[in-house]
Amino acid sequence: MRRIHFFLMALAMLAGSIAWMVPASGQADKAAPPIYLTKMPSGFRDWQLISVAHEAGKLNSLGAMLGNEVAMKAYREKTLPYPDGTIIAALHYTHLPNAENNTVFGDVQSYTPGPPSNYQFMVKDSKKYAATGGWGFGSFTPEGKAFTDAQMKTCAPCHAKASRDGVFTQYAP
Amino acid sequence: MRRIHFFLMALAMLAGSIAWMVPASGQADKAAPPIYLTKMPSGFRDWQLISVAHEAGKLNSLGAMLGNEVAMKAYREKTLPYPDGTIIAALHYTHLPNAENNTVFGDVQSYTPGPPSNYQFMVKDSKKYAATGGWGFGSFTPEGKAFTDAQMKTCAPCHAKASRDGVFTQYAP
Repeated sequence: MRRIHFFLMALAMLAGSIAWMVPASGQADKAAPPIYLTKMPSGFRDWQLISVAHEAGKLNSLGAMLGNEVAMKAYREKTLPYPDGTIIAALHYTHLPNAENNTVFGDVQSYTPGPPSNYQFMVKDSKKYAATGGWGFGSFTPEGKAFTDAQMKTCAPCHAKASRDGVFTQYAP
Repeated sequence: MRRIHFFLMALAMLAGSIAWMVPASGQADKAAPPIYLTKMPSGFRDWQLISVAHEAGKLNSLGAMLGNEVAMKAYREKTLPYPDGTIIAALHYTHLPNAENNTVFGDVQSYTPGPPSNYQFMVKDSKKYAATGGWGFGSFTPEGKAFTDAQMKTCAPCHAKASRDGVFTQYAP
């Protein structure tokens, strides 16, 4: 019993050290599994639409979720879990009242995208990202700069709470 | 003066009769210019994303605007007026709080598409739709049934108030 306890403690310390060392060194060790995306998937702005979303409150965001061909096929055929090669893109914009539209409509009712806030991605690779439910996560500034590892820590545990293979977004018909 | 008055009255009556006759006969006279779309453009759900929108108030809608190839090229190259062949689709869904997402987030912040409300289209054909700024309008139920002419009357005069060739939606980068 004591041995098991010691083993678990050592494991926890080791895990803590790794989590600490990776962002400190600035890049993951070559032998270590990849953690987050470092580059945006190419051509994502041309992908087809999965759905749209409005996040009120602090996020104050209007979003469009797009999928590559593998993602769209899986969504339309209701394939779960999502097959390897699936990529889901979430394009987030500031949720802003549209002055021109509201003048025409005679009411403050129209909200449209302001500047992009970030572009986020989920890439399915069940081997490469086995530690995070098979999903690799990536968040980027509108200029394509990857978020820091510290900023990325919350992605996987939060998505693990989503039913349907860790994916919040459902297909809009 | 009396003659002019009579002429305008006759014109109004004639217009009223035409508006009455067209839906009654089920199809427009062959010689008359087409008024509204009677069929949804095929394949529109696969088109690329122009932008997203949230209409609060009575409309309570989350929308995605998609464009066919001509539309996407025009948007990206900032071509105005839009060339003939442009089709812009607006997919409207009920703006609903998402219970699953909000449970995970611990706050009522996430709004996602409920059932589709309607699918709307603008088709550019500067000759065919010369009377309405070169745009042909169409609104359809989610099942693809065209709105009545009476329901469609407000489209053109409202869009005529939008700058950028009668189009409200701008490209989201």
